[in-house]
Amino acid sequence: MTESPGRVEAFSDGVFAIAITLLILEIRVPHGDGGLWAGLLALWPSYIAFLMSFVVILIMWVNHHELLRMVRRVNYPFLFANGFLLLTVTFIPFPTAVLAANLATPDAKAAVAFYCGSFVANALVWNLLFATIVRGDLLRADVNAATVANVRRTYYIGVSVYILATALAFVRPALGLALNASLCVVWIRLGYRSESSVSSPRSES
Amino acid sequence: MTESPGRVEAFSDGVFAIAITLLILEIRVPHGDGGLWAGLLALWPSYIAFLMSFVVILIMWVNHHELLRMVRRVNYPFLFANGFLLLTVTFIPFPTAVLAANLATPDAKAAVAFYCGSFVANALVWNLLFATIVRGDLLRADVNAATVANVRRTYYIGVSVYILATALAFVRPALGLALNASLCVVWIRLGYRSESSVSSPRSES
Amino acid sequence: MTESPGRVEAFSDGVFAIAITLLILEIRVPHGDGGLWAGLLALWPSYIAFLMSFVVILIMWVNHHELLRMVRRVNYPFLFANGFLLLTVTFIPFPTAVLAANLATPDAKAAVAFYCGSFVANALVWNLLFATIVRGDLLRADVNAATVANVRRTYYIGVSVYILATALAFVRPALGLALNASLCVVWIRLGYRSESSVSSPRSES
Amino acid sequence: MTESPGRVEAFSDGVFAIAITLLILEIRVPHGDGGLWAGLLALWPSYIAFLMSFVVILIMWVNHHELLRMVRRVNYPFLFANGFLLLTVTFIPFPTAVLAANLATPDAKAAVAFYCGSFVANALVWNLLFATIVRGDLLRADVNAATVANVRRTYYIGVSVYILATALAFVRPALGLALNASLCVVWIRLGYRSESSVSSPRSES
Repeated sequence: MTESPGRVEAFSDGVFAIAITLLILEIRVPHGDGGLWAGLLALWPSYIAFLMSFVVILIMWVNHHELLRMVRRVNYPFLFANGFLLLTVTFIPFPTAVLAANLATPDAKAAVAFYCGSFVANALVWNLLFATIVRGDLLRADVNAATVANVRRTYYIGVSVYILATALAFVRPALGLALNASLCVVWIRLGYRSESSVSSPRSES
Repeated sequence: MTESPGRVEAFSDGVFAIAITLLILEIRVPHGDGGLWAGLLALWPSYIAFLMSFVVILIMWVNHHELLRMVRRVNYPFLFANGFLLLTVTFIPFPTAVLAANLATPDAKAAVAFYCGSFVANALVWNLLFATIVRGDLLRADVNAATVANVRRTYYIGVSVYILATALAFVRPALGLALNASLCVVWIRLGYRSESSVSSPRSES
Repeated sequence: MTESPGRVEAFSDGVFAIAITLLILEIRVPHGDGGLWAGLLALWPSYIAFLMSFVVILIMWVNHHELLRMVRRVNYPFLFANGFLLLTVTFIPFPTAVLAANLATPDAKAAVAFYCGSFVANALVWNLLFATIVRGDLLRADVNAATVANVRRTYYIGVSVYILATALAFVRPALGLALNASLCVVWIRLGYRSESSVSSPRSES
Repeated sequence: MTESPGRVEAFSDGVFAIAITLLILEIRVPHGDGGLWAGLLALWPSYIAFLMSFVVILIMWVNHHELLRMVRRVNYPFLFANGFLLLTVTFIPFPTAVLAANLATPDAKAAVAFYCGSFVANALVWNLLFATIVRGDLLRADVNAATVANVRRTYYIGVSVYILATALAFVRPALGLALNASLCVVWIRLGYRSESSVSSPRSES
């Protein structure tokens, strides 16, 4: 099992691609009385939920890709930590559907809290996966301590902000959801910045 | 992130393959009174919607393939523009289901307009993606200005015709849908013509 | 577009894999009165439909693999003929669900005829695909005339037997279904025989 | 057909990835009266079923990977034995949904027995696949008799324990389910141990 991460990457890509495409099944054809346009407009919570989860999974896929570029080989604990991460990814369509069904109802607080809470779990597993990589000595030799510290800090921030968003959801669900979404912007920004540093290891190959 | 487009291509292929296969879930087993044949015949709007969306996604996959053959490397903006394109692709099963459910009802105008409108959004993102590629200097060196101008013009035509089809749908839904479908023929034709020019760059490898 | 069939193969594999996995969604959890075992037993038409379609798609995947091994390059007509084949493959979950829902009802004849009829369409597209390959001069140089004639004959037989099964379904649905299933055995047998001849071209690579 | 297992591996990976991601479709958005939290909590049988099946499919994917690393070439019987294995894998979402729907009802015994029974079938096919590999002389030259005996014993244990779990389910469903889950731990452990022995063949490449 001391092999290159190629096949894990392919399997993970498959799971990411399927999870992101299944999201659309959550949006059901409207069957109301007030005409089709009214029915389509009334689905706005579904569109928001779909859009948010799509962007989050897309960013995760990019980040997973970036992370695995730092990995030179995989071992058994890595396979299961990665599998645990995929579990939290395949779970996303469910809180997404819960959010869509309840965002315009009195249960909005619970729905947003559940949605954000799912990402707390997901963010914790990203930390677990990175810890597994570092402890198992799976990093490429050219990944320096500064990069490791940077990734770790980013993942800690992720957990913290998602916890904050979950807590906020109980008081002001709209704000909780906005905070959750704002993390996407942070991550995309981090990606841009790291483009010139983190990704350099393989750039010469 | 200055890497070859291999993994983005594989991920995109996965999303295209899943979206095209999920379309069938829109066709539900008939449970009517007049016998199975009558029930199967009454599903004609579903067959039309399935067929149209299948062909469109297939053509998009071919075009995506052609486009990425002109790309020598990918960057962060490309990843997100491409992700945005995939969003509009995974969305297609929803307007397809809306079309199927309403084509034989008084809501046909709204359904066709919504269906065609989805492709306006999709066509706009193709333009965005190509602009991202050109501006980011991601094109292969052997892709000349004529080819770039040709792709750009084709994408502009796509947006225009889809807008026209959407507008037409409000008046004559059948014509709007026919115009939408006719674009497929145009694109397949363009593909044939470009076979001898656009695709030459990699033919020697 | 004068390229190797690698990416078409990967995309087709994706569609085959998804179509074969979606079949299970047709079997719904029973919610009857007579206890769970009775409910599970009453689903026998679903199990038969699932099993038959699974085996057929699996065999098609193997045959598609065998066919593409004879192909040295792909062109535009091939891409669309292959896409048309994939259309008939992604369609299979629908007649499968129709068969499962009606096999134990008075509509069994119509359901079996519709199911077998879907494979007539599919078999016709296999012929179209092979004709596209031969006419487009896409075959490898080491594929001789005997092999071409053999593949063509097999595909003709496929169409004929499926037409027969469809006709038979109107009279004796059980026999029609059995004839349909028997083709699988024929195809597996053909595969075994061809193992020593057709597949030799690439065996040295 | 005397080729390397690359494409079978890719197809199998696709099926594993889709089956594992489809599991989430079994968890439906709650529509109760007692508020969303109560509804989400009442779904505990769904969470257990989802978690168990996810882990089992993940482990199967890892084991399939390990198994194919011992294989130097594939033949026709292998393709169909492997296809039969994939059939039992794509089937898993159904007993999972049955388990989720009945775990908290008087039908729990039947549901757990059906769930565990599905894994008896699956475990039998793993034995069939390995027998096909050994009999077809498909193993790599450096896989020694001790490894073969070890794999065979592990697979026998799998069948035995699943049969035991199924029998136990009729008396004490909770215990049957626990025994079923405990096999996962055994398999992960076996994986760890084999990490230093079984996987060595390819480690130098």
